[in-house]
Amino acid sequence: MRPLIFITNDDSFDSKGIKELIDLMRKYGDVLVMAPHIQRSGQSHAITVGEPLRFWKVEEDEGYEAYICTGTPVDSVKLAFNALLNGRRPDLLVSGINHGSNASINTIYSGTMAAVFEGCALGVPSIGYSLDDHDFDADFSYAMPVIEEITKEVLENGLEDGVCLNVNIPKGKIKGSKITHQAKAFWKEDFAERKDPMGFSYYWLSGVYQSQDDSPLGDHNAMKDGYAAIAPMQVDFTSYKVIDEYSKRFNK
Amino acid sequence: MRPLIFITNDDSFDSKGIKELIDLMRKYGDVLVMAPHIQRSGQSHAITVGEPLRFWKVEEDEGYEAYICTGTPVDSVKLAFNALLNGRRPDLLVSGINHGSNASINTIYSGTMAAVFEGCALGVPSIGYSLDDHDFDADFSYAMPVIEEITKEVLENGLEDGVCLNVNIPKGKIKGSKITHQAKAFWKEDFAERKDPMGFSYYWLSGVYQSQDDSPLGDHNAMKDGYAAIAPMQVDFTSYKVIDEYSKRFNK
Repeated sequence: MRPLIFITNDDSFDSKGIKELIDLMRKYGDVLVMAPHIQRSGQSHAITVGEPLRFWKVEEDEGYEAYICTGTPVDSVKLAFNALLNGRRPDLLVSGINHGSNASINTIYSGTMAAVFEGCALGVPSIGYSLDDHDFDADFSYAMPVIEEITKEVLENGLEDGVCLNVNIPKGKIKGSKITHQAKAFWKEDFAERKDPMGFSYYWLSGVYQSQDDSPLGDHNAMKDGYAAIAPMQVDFTSYKVIDEYSKRFNK
Repeated sequence: MRPLIFITNDDSFDSKGIKELIDLMRKYGDVLVMAPHIQRSGQSHAITVGEPLRFWKVEEDEGYEAYICTGTPVDSVKLAFNALLNGRRPDLLVSGINHGSNASINTIYSGTMAAVFEGCALGVPSIGYSLDDHDFDADFSYAMPVIEEITKEVLENGLEDGVCLNVNIPKGKIKGSKITHQAKAFWKEDFAERKDPMGFSYYWLSGVYQSQDDSPLGDHNAMKDGYAAIAPMQVDFTSYKVIDEYSKRFNK
């Protein structure tokens, strides 16, 4: 039996990145897609509570079905696994290809990566793919062989339980692939204030990336150096390095 | 000079939990609040992109200002730090008190904890407080002495750079406080299907908590055993334990 590969993203089903990923994955397995019906970038691990969700089939072919839903990327995973797969787990979850980097601190804001963390928590080998190019018509041609290689490796050998991959790929030619860590950084917030026609203020969220990590093995840095940066990640956010010291401080 | 304490949550400014937290924190410093104007539970680290934000002052007193905004908990942090503090960092960020547990896998969905991770990434000692009771009129009286003790400890001794605290407190009497880790678990998705008056289906997200961790030092378990569970957490999601092995597998 061919493997079942589940695909989602946060740029919506209409993005070029997910079409490229679907075309590639159909070579390797049966493909099920559930993606947001509109752009849901920056939605992180948000789930829809307090209002219901709907979904529709939009494409169908041999070994391939695609659906869109009114939810977030994480909703898309949950909805597909429950309402379409009745609890059967796919053999692989891939999310993306995102238009724009999800390296470094971007991991935490990313809907693409949230879907990957959700798959990981649900016991499915899960990979997020992102290209460092926000262009609507971004060129994925150099990225595809790298994505194919990583996908084949994971289909063959799996991933440790509780570990997923965050793969960030530079624009243009690629020097190679490297296992990296999440580079330390933050977005320095920088709101743009505007006035509406009634004279009231409103604010556009904006920010500037502030690197705090010079290591060539930081994912952001490796990507900027021309490498596909593969960061293994986990859904356990515990800071184990301080457990002993903090036990002395806080246990009562 | 009194410390500057920033407060936010995800249950909105109208919740009982944030009022309790404000009253307590005003004993220890000047307090600035920016909270969502409506309930934003389950919003995780979502940020508002593609539409602007607004905010309004709702309360003011000596050493105290409270604002509400149209954004998520993470937007609230970013907006306050930029538009109100002009880049000055508060001495402490506290988020909550959440109505409902944010232990275990709930960490990843929680807007309350996302605000804490955001503060942590921005270099501010940050603590999330949650009570294991979703009731709108939950009784926080047993929790307050624990929250006071932890807050004083952190105001005095700080937290390691890149480390924040996720504190989950049981209902009723408390046996003590324990440093814990994020208990392994997942929500088994279980959508409820309904039909609208036109006969079309819609789905309510629902789920059942599935524990995969029996350790008494798992945060969920310690809380259910009657302890305030204090899990130190970090915004670096890298799975360092597989770095060497995966470097052999994936580096090209």
